[in-house]
Amino acid sequence: MASTSRMGVIILAAGQGKRMHSSLPKVLHEIGGEPMLFQILHRIREAAPDAPVAIVVGHAREMVEAAVRSCSAFSAMNLTFVHQPEQRGTGHAARCAMDAPWGNDRIAEKGSVLVLPGDLPLISKRLVEQLLAPLGKGEVLRLLTCHLTDPTGYGRVVRRGSRGPVLRIVEEKDANLRERAIREVAVSIYSFQAAFLRFGLHRLSNKNAQSEYYLTDLISQAARAKKKSEVLIWERAEELRGINDPWELAQARRILNDAVLKRWSLQGVKILDTQSTWVDPSVELASDVTLYPGVLLSGTTQIAAGATLGPGVILRDTIVGEQANVKAGSIAEKSIIGARVQLGPYAHLRPESEVGEDSKIGNFVELKKSKIGAHTSVAHLSYLGDATVGRNVNIGCGFITCNYDGRVVNGERKHRTIIEDEVFMGSDCQTVAPVKIGRGSYVASGSTVVEDVPPDSLAIARTRQVTKPGYAKKLRQK
Amino acid sequence: MASTSRMGVIILAAGQGKRMHSSLPKVLHEIGGEPMLFQILHRIREAAPDAPVAIVVGHAREMVEAAVRSCSAFSAMNLTFVHQPEQRGTGHAARCAMDAPWGNDRIAEKGSVLVLPGDLPLISKRLVEQLLAPLGKGEVLRLLTCHLTDPTGYGRVVRRGSRGPVLRIVEEKDANLRERAIREVAVSIYSFQAAFLRFGLHRLSNKNAQSEYYLTDLISQAARAKKKSEVLIWERAEELRGINDPWELAQARRILNDAVLKRWSLQGVKILDTQSTWVDPSVELASDVTLYPGVLLSGTTQIAAGATLGPGVILRDTIVGEQANVKAGSIAEKSIIGARVQLGPYAHLRPESEVGEDSKIGNFVELKKSKIGAHTSVAHLSYLGDATVGRNVNIGCGFITCNYDGRVVNGERKHRTIIEDEVFMGSDCQTVAPVKIGRGSYVASGSTVVEDVPPDSLAIARTRQVTKPGYAKKLRQK
Amino acid sequence: MASTSRMGVIILAAGQGKRMHSSLPKVLHEIGGEPMLFQILHRIREAAPDAPVAIVVGHAREMVEAAVRSCSAFSAMNLTFVHQPEQRGTGHAARCAMDAPWGNDRIAEKGSVLVLPGDLPLISKRLVEQLLAPLGKGEVLRLLTCHLTDPTGYGRVVRRGSRGPVLRIVEEKDANLRERAIREVAVSIYSFQAAFLRFGLHRLSNKNAQSEYYLTDLISQAARAKKKSEVLIWERAEELRGINDPWELAQARRILNDAVLKRWSLQGVKILDTQSTWVDPSVELASDVTLYPGVLLSGTTQIAAGATLGPGVILRDTIVGEQANVKAGSIAEKSIIGARVQLGPYAHLRPESEVGEDSKIGNFVELKKSKIGAHTSVAHLSYLGDATVGRNVNIGCGFITCNYDGRVVNGERKHRTIIEDEVFMGSDCQTVAPVKIGRGSYVASGSTVVEDVPPDSLAIARTRQVTKPGYAKKLRQK
Repeated sequence: MASTSRMGVIILAAGQGKRMHSSLPKVLHEIGGEPMLFQILHRIREAAPDAPVAIVVGHAREMVEAAVRSCSAFSAMNLTFVHQPEQRGTGHAARCAMDAPWGNDRIAEKGSVLVLPGDLPLISKRLVEQLLAPLGKGEVLRLLTCHLTDPTGYGRVVRRGSRGPVLRIVEEKDANLRERAIREVAVSIYSFQAAFLRFGLHRLSNKNAQSEYYLTDLISQAARAKKKSEVLIWERAEELRGINDPWELAQARRILNDAVLKRWSLQGVKILDTQSTWVDPSVELASDVTLYPGVLLSGTTQIAAGATLGPGVILRDTIVGEQANVKAGSIAEKSIIGARVQLGPYAHLRPESEVGEDSKIGNFVELKKSKIGAHTSVAHLSYLGDATVGRNVNIGCGFITCNYDGRVVNGERKHRTIIEDEVFMGSDCQTVAPVKIGRGSYVASGSTVVEDVPPDSLAIARTRQVTKPGYAKKLRQK
Repeated sequence: MASTSRMGVIILAAGQGKRMHSSLPKVLHEIGGEPMLFQILHRIREAAPDAPVAIVVGHAREMVEAAVRSCSAFSAMNLTFVHQPEQRGTGHAARCAMDAPWGNDRIAEKGSVLVLPGDLPLISKRLVEQLLAPLGKGEVLRLLTCHLTDPTGYGRVVRRGSRGPVLRIVEEKDANLRERAIREVAVSIYSFQAAFLRFGLHRLSNKNAQSEYYLTDLISQAARAKKKSEVLIWERAEELRGINDPWELAQARRILNDAVLKRWSLQGVKILDTQSTWVDPSVELASDVTLYPGVLLSGTTQIAAGATLGPGVILRDTIVGEQANVKAGSIAEKSIIGARVQLGPYAHLRPESEVGEDSKIGNFVELKKSKIGAHTSVAHLSYLGDATVGRNVNIGCGFITCNYDGRVVNGERKHRTIIEDEVFMGSDCQTVAPVKIGRGSYVASGSTVVEDVPPDSLAIARTRQVTKPGYAKKLRQK
Repeated sequence: MASTSRMGVIILAAGQGKRMHSSLPKVLHEIGGEPMLFQILHRIREAAPDAPVAIVVGHAREMVEAAVRSCSAFSAMNLTFVHQPEQRGTGHAARCAMDAPWGNDRIAEKGSVLVLPGDLPLISKRLVEQLLAPLGKGEVLRLLTCHLTDPTGYGRVVRRGSRGPVLRIVEEKDANLRERAIREVAVSIYSFQAAFLRFGLHRLSNKNAQSEYYLTDLISQAARAKKKSEVLIWERAEELRGINDPWELAQARRILNDAVLKRWSLQGVKILDTQSTWVDPSVELASDVTLYPGVLLSGTTQIAAGATLGPGVILRDTIVGEQANVKAGSIAEKSIIGARVQLGPYAHLRPESEVGEDSKIGNFVELKKSKIGAHTSVAHLSYLGDATVGRNVNIGCGFITCNYDGRVVNGERKHRTIIEDEVFMGSDCQTVAPVKIGRGSYVASGSTVVEDVPPDSLAIARTRQVTKPGYAKKLRQK
């Protein structure tokens, strides 16, 4: 059993998010290439890797749990899922956590608890750190607020006088005209003294329009009881955007992307169009990398120094070597592109492809589970599937590996093609796998190769040309 | 002859729009995939399907008339084209309509007439409804105004006192300094009592800088005659943008697109980049559809639930089935993509193509007037034109239908290819049409098929491979 | 030796630009398709083609000099490179120029000198003209300022009273609270009387935090000496953006692009998406050209009237004829596309390609150093390299020129293919170069052509089809 901790975190992730109009629970909608809940978990992991974290789940909780458990980045975190069987408000959700073994066993009475919703994916590590800072002596809570030019829709912070202590949060629909004019709003993030939280949650009432238990009522509880509290006024309101519908998610996605692009740009990445380029936070870029408009990078993609990614290049989980030039419209997934490779335009690397240094993969070429050696050229209109190609090979235009002949042999549907170093493969050739073309061999254009070719051999499988002079004229007259 | 109506509409669409620098008349320039005039007609159709509408045409009037008549959405509307032979101002244009049989026969004296320019494509149905509402008792006109932060270029609304009745509209170039500071501007939209309009139009003078008859002068006529009028102050100034040059059109196009995207987004469509995605108002999207950056959808395109459109996908008049995955850079026009189909990347469906459920069309594949059955695979680098392909067919890489042999047979230039169910077509095959490959047949890689293949047959048309060991060495030494 | 001039220009281009994090010196970073320094040189060339210009270089000066010398647009300018051996401040840089033969021999004592940094690429010709205008009688300098809503980071202009003469420029870090509130800022651009500049530069001190000689100190020198000076307050603050890091460069690039697009738009170019379209200032567009979203145009590209460039089209140094339709995703470099040509989607023209009028180049077709005649069709999945194709030719799908056979003949690696007028090339043919297909000939589908074909001949090089009924069934049972 875990020893009690001075600081715990409760993430409210039980809601469906009806306005998302989706079968996916709200906190699993993606931003930056991951469920929005992950963004919050990353920030907590960075700020307090050991803190016990309760994730309150309800709607589609199996999906939420499975998603979080599938991400290795969180495996060392101290995570507990707490079930909120019915959606009865934020106060009820927090009580589920505090009443569960998580709250009883892990959270010390004198410790504090950060409560935040799972749909605020833009919060920064710095904000989480400040929220996790110990409460001042005698304080029972810390409230996060910010000032908005247009506070419409947010709960207003009502203070004694204009700058005095906070008396309560008033929801917009309950606010009078004077309260509506207040531009300081509450974001649903709080740090509570654990004892105050546990006690207060049990005193909440659901006598309100929605018949729900509201966490915000703890603010007025504290004020009425003359407890000391603290307000953290956050200037970067952008970080505090909640996601309630797909449109808000789209706006948040752009804010996150802008931040990612700006970070790389200030480290020397040349981003030609910062509006049409999308880079997931998980991607790594070296300096002096150039990104043309419309580039999309995701997953574990890494780009080495001096590489250029042309317009519309799409890479997922792909490694690009130094000085490589990935030209317009090329697509790669789970692949490795070597240093100084020229790729594309419109090359397509399906998973498990690897292109050696200084090689060229040209337009309309598809690779799949294929390894291409260094200094090799596959310049046009070819398909290499399940192939191993050596160094200094020239693959002519229109080459096709026939890796599937409709039959399953030894449990395999696809068969391998091996092309050794220094082979010259003429244009419009096919190799019917399994087959091996020996080192230094030469295959004549237009050949269908069905048998292995020993090293240094010439293989030819085409018909002699027959030319019938004057015959075309007759054809035309038919 | 139509009975007289209580409400008519005059659309001013006679201008050339010199600043458009185009051979196309201004109102035919496109926004949302249609001439801007159509946007206005759609809104009128939605708000008042039966209202008699006069479209005043002049410059390139045949083009404007032909365009409107070609759109079936307007065929049930009560539309009349009125010719304005010379461009002599908005007042003259309106008089052409009121003096024409349209005005005499269809518009009751006690009815009212909405007059609006054909270059305000962003007006909403709600605005048109409010403009078409009956005038108050004794009122002779309703003026539409809005407040702009920067009123430069617009006619200012001069009132008695700051909030009193409107006295007149003063054009910017005629305005004194105090008038220029006015931020309430007039948009060229009015509802008139028909009798007042008819009478007033004949009293307009063209004694002004441009020697034109101005509709705005009716405002001061009414004021001088102590007639009652009404002002509709519209808060959504965006709707009232007029289009005077291609730059303004481009801005308006973005505003319209934003509105379309927001509407779909709030219904659950996941739009990853709301700035690079373009969806015409005519397109239909189900919820839980995902649109990657750079998607362009136009015409009668419909996307079913759960479908994903990858980056840069371009669809026109195309239907996409449930859970289909249309990958990056794929293009389709007048085609049908079945449920759960995997398409692309870089697949190209030319008109009259149809892909059956669960089929796969891979990269660099072109279809034209071809029907592909369910559970069939055309995975790479192929062209199918004028083909009918059955179910459970495997089409190897590099397949080509030779649908044209340079001759016209029975009046047809292109011939059909039929590939029945369960056929296995090896890689790099061609079929010279007209030709039929029977059910369950197997065609060997590299074959040119010129004769029909009966069911369950093997067809082969390639040469035996000849391998000459050591010969490549000699070649290299030459 | 040049005669002395009444007006000289010093461009400060010696800095490394550490915050660019690049091996490229700062002034060579690109905007509008050219090094940012070029933008300034273009504006000076337009405003004062004969003015003697000193470019002060230091960091990577060979690269900077080589870049400028390589651009023919500047060859007629009166340019001198002055070496600043150490980076000791803007005042020291200017002194290097004034002390060099350039300053001594070319600049008259009574002349004036415009000093500006090489990293302000957005300045307009109009601004340069006003900066180059003669100073007023008795004036020793002209200072450029502008008002910013947010002056953070800029040197503030301290005046006597709020609108009196300028006393000095105070850098932000040295400014007191009152000075920080000043919103008039100095941009590092000045016109000096040459004698004042020469004298003043030698009196500068480097007793400051950075131990550098600052040009701004000349302002206070002039004020203390009661010299008359002049302030040019520029309203278009956008033009005065300096570039200090790649993020600022990206923002400036967008501003420049917006200006280019707006200019073309107002001349009648239809730009469907002004945010994703990028057009270099060097490109020429006719009116009634239509650009779809994502078009990228660079270099000496010229587009004739009525042409349409589809989504994602990328053209560099390419000429497009009237009414041509370049479809989605097509790419061309150093090529010529004739009038009314249909190209793409996804066609790729590598350098030195030329497509004749009314021809069609379809999807997944690559041309390289090839000339295609008029009214010819290359509709799908083909590669033509080093080919000359005549008029009215039909090239079937899957055609490949085998222009390289692995050997070098007469010093050439690649060999030419000649296809004369009226040839019909069936699908999936290859021609092994050097080879010539005579006028009016017909090549059967699936043929590998290795010998010349005389005019009007039929060439065929494929195997007869063998069909084995029932054999496929056996295959399946294996």
